[in-house]
Amino acid sequence: MPVTTREIHLVARPEGEPKPSDFALVERRLPDPRDGELLVRNLAISVDPYMRGKMTGIRTYTDPYDLHAPMEGAAVGVVETSGDASFPENAVVVHNAGWREHAIVPAAGVRPVNVTDATPATAYLGVLGMPGLTAYVGLLHKAGLREGDTVFVSGAAGAVGGIVGQLARLWGAERVVGSAGTAEKVRYVTRELGFDAAFDYHDGPVADQLAKAAPDGVDVYFDNVGGEHLEAAIGAAKDFARFALCGAISGYNATGPRSGPRNLGLIVTKRLTLRGFIVSDDPELAGEFHRDVAPAVAEGRITFRETVVDGLERAPEAFISMLRGGNIGKMLVRTS
Amino acid sequence: MPVTTREIHLVARPEGEPKPSDFALVERRLPDPRDGELLVRNLAISVDPYMRGKMTGIRTYTDPYDLHAPMEGAAVGVVETSGDASFPENAVVVHNAGWREHAIVPAAGVRPVNVTDATPATAYLGVLGMPGLTAYVGLLHKAGLREGDTVFVSGAAGAVGGIVGQLARLWGAERVVGSAGTAEKVRYVTRELGFDAAFDYHDGPVADQLAKAAPDGVDVYFDNVGGEHLEAAIGAAKDFARFALCGAISGYNATGPRSGPRNLGLIVTKRLTLRGFIVSDDPELAGEFHRDVAPAVAEGRITFRETVVDGLERAPEAFISMLRGGNIGKMLVRTS
Repeated sequence: MPVTTREIHLVARPEGEPKPSDFALVERRLPDPRDGELLVRNLAISVDPYMRGKMTGIRTYTDPYDLHAPMEGAAVGVVETSGDASFPENAVVVHNAGWREHAIVPAAGVRPVNVTDATPATAYLGVLGMPGLTAYVGLLHKAGLREGDTVFVSGAAGAVGGIVGQLARLWGAERVVGSAGTAEKVRYVTRELGFDAAFDYHDGPVADQLAKAAPDGVDVYFDNVGGEHLEAAIGAAKDFARFALCGAISGYNATGPRSGPRNLGLIVTKRLTLRGFIVSDDPELAGEFHRDVAPAVAEGRITFRETVVDGLERAPEAFISMLRGGNIGKMLVRTS
Repeated sequence: MPVTTREIHLVARPEGEPKPSDFALVERRLPDPRDGELLVRNLAISVDPYMRGKMTGIRTYTDPYDLHAPMEGAAVGVVETSGDASFPENAVVVHNAGWREHAIVPAAGVRPVNVTDATPATAYLGVLGMPGLTAYVGLLHKAGLREGDTVFVSGAAGAVGGIVGQLARLWGAERVVGSAGTAEKVRYVTRELGFDAAFDYHDGPVADQLAKAAPDGVDVYFDNVGGEHLEAAIGAAKDFARFALCGAISGYNATGPRSGPRNLGLIVTKRLTLRGFIVSDDPELAGEFHRDVAPAVAEGRITFRETVVDGLERAPEAFISMLRGGNIGKMLVRTS
């Protein structure tokens, strides 16, 4: 039976910080799914920093969003009508047709997930989804975490950063240090996530605060922020330190080029390695990630928080807020 | 029999570009070598960019030069008096007691070299010495050159850059592109060294010239220069490009911090790897380097030039000139 549903379209390419008027809420009627398709009622959709890059209209590692079409991104939902025998009705699935209340998706683009008390459906958008995998791949495979390392992670209270810090502890780091943007976030990462030290980057130069938090220097830096944070991490790096560069949210809304770190000469003298990475390049690591991380989440050795905004119509607001640092843990929009 | 000799001392730490008055020519009497020592008469000494960093008084990967002591660095010379049976008189050796006409050195710190028509003594300060090893280690082991790569090297007419380009060709690069600082150097690297394209970085923005020289992008960048060159290479990089960062001569005389590349966000979206390295970290690679490269030099498949300044007293002038780009190929000072 056809359903009437709503979706968020991108209608203008943002200049600087996105505005609500860059988005439109569009009502739409969906037909029944065909053979091999599923009609999914989304429970929650993800808003993620990488989406800002796809709004620019410039192709990078992925195609930009089209204008006047739904934004896309991770979502978790319930199968309402199934055109594929391997997905029964009421199965909970993750897929990439976010920013809408219902979606018709090919069964091949859908992954069933195991919902329990410890791992609710929304966990598959965060700790057990792309952000968790990003933390895992970046920390263990790109930065090559070793036992005894001192690890620094920026954006430590975010969906990725919070997992990085906890994985670092579980995988043998000697000291885990984070930065975040509010006092509440600093308390969260030290008290709930077990970071050894953290600081609010508004409280003074990052370099000075990092020198206090990691006085013996940094072996691994996981960069979510860029800019001043990257410069400070280069300054604090020990010889042969390894950096996994995941993103640079401090610059995502910038309207022009920004000067880079002034201390890049240290990359040579300290023999640093800086590796940029995109999680989707390593799909073969998803298996070991779930095998390693899902039990740790189920047993409470890795914890997570969510910042939930209710109602699809508020997805742009949630996205804009997330870019401003308005979230602790994963920023989500509950859509049903 | 004791000899009277001359050496160059560092007497002031340069601010900005070194001046002749930062150095002093000092006469000195050397005793006879003791057991296990050699008295070497230097034939030529090397002036190298890394020496600028050791003049600052700041410890990096190596100790700074002491004031009122001889500058040190690679030299090639003849054993005049031997206190070690394995080094006969008149043996030609390489050692690290440069910037002087004679030196007493422990035999353990000396390496005998094989002088032929194709490999004169001075070759062991350049193509078969530290600069050649730097090119080899950086290109093959740090950047991980692969067949079919497009390689960009800055400072292409220098002691290191000229070897990088020739190694790249011999090891299967598809296209080799270089930058240099004069039209004569550009002709040298394209006509004598076999680069496919080169440009004078004074002729326009590096990014624009690189885009013309490597229109399909760059897989490997070997950085000797830093600054605008590094930014241009990041801009021209293909996805998954690898950068070996060897030095940043454009900033060595800078008196304050300089802004870094404005496009570091591309490290993430293009998944670039930037590796700083110092050749002395990998002494175990010297064996394969000599095995691979010495025959290529002997057979003329790798060529080199030298810019020679005569007389120890002119070593400061040669050093200052080298930092300004006054050399083609290896800058040397002939001392006897």
